[in-house]
Amino acid sequence: MNPEALYKISYGLYVVSSVKDGRFSGQIANTVFQLSSDPILIAACLNKKNFTNECVSETKAFSISVLAKDTPMQFIGRFGFRSGREFDKFEGVNYKIGKTGVPIVLDNTVAYIEVRVRDAMDASTHTLFVGEVVDAEILNDKEVMTYDHYRIMKGRTPKTATVYL
Amino acid sequence: MNPEALYKISYGLYVVSSVKDGRFSGQIANTVFQLSSDPILIAACLNKKNFTNECVSETKAFSISVLAKDTPMQFIGRFGFRSGREFDKFEGVNYKIGKTGVPIVLDNTVAYIEVRVRDAMDASTHTLFVGEVVDAEILNDKEVMTYDHYRIMKGRTPKTATVYL
Repeated sequence: MNPEALYKISYGLYVVSSVKDGRFSGQIANTVFQLSSDPILIAACLNKKNFTNECVSETKAFSISVLAKDTPMQFIGRFGFRSGREFDKFEGVNYKIGKTGVPIVLDNTVAYIEVRVRDAMDASTHTLFVGEVVDAEILNDKEVMTYDHYRIMKGRTPKTATVYL
Repeated sequence: MNPEALYKISYGLYVVSSVKDGRFSGQIANTVFQLSSDPILIAACLNKKNFTNECVSETKAFSISVLAKDTPMQFIGRFGFRSGREFDKFEGVNYKIGKTGVPIVLDNTVAYIEVRVRDAMDASTHTLFVGEVVDAEILNDKEVMTYDHYRIMKGRTPKTATVYL
């Protein structure tokens, strides 16, 4: 058995954002995908240790910002390697408030999707949140960032990621 | 709201295979991903109308063949647009039997992952099957097929897909 085979699965790279008691949270995620088209169900998989998981569990809504291929590593580091419990990740970041009240990151974003949670599944270290799309827009026609491209750019993977080996 | 925003989510392209009463089934899927790394949990989302869904529900195991970028459209059509109830998709296809007894497609395959199901989640028209990896191997270092590349090649999307718009 070669666990490296799991790296052959393709992913994008996203900022998943939510809110709790007026406090915003946002984190990098790669496990975001569509589950059905009627109704449109979207899923995102978040580590239980992450503040964003706590926010989504409570607020039952989140937004997904699809990152552009040219997103600076510094921006990914800001959302991916520091905790929203410790500092305000949204300071200096361009965002708007969505229909459900969650923040939607607009910087380095090709498109966004806003989701109202209707189900959650326990997945060991992670929770899979599933919900209906309440809003979705394309912001520009830039190429999207893939997880593969991120790895080629020597981007690191935190221990809290679904794909950490 | 622009539903086309959902096309900005990145996916690979896979053959998901299983078996029921000695009858093999295999289908094209794009919604395959890792949910956690400890233990390694893998998920695949399959339409309830598909024979493969029936097989996985009963046998509680499936294999994932990660398709190469140069996979012929004809091969994808064979597994993606015809039902395993009507004809034997595996005739003339190179495959092996995995540890759980499911077939593993080897033609046009970069890597495979074999999964024993431990949970399933209802997702409207689809079922999300989640399980532990029992085997995984890389077969070659070819580039993998992404769903984006498949669309660029004018590949069609059946109505039973998670991403059908």
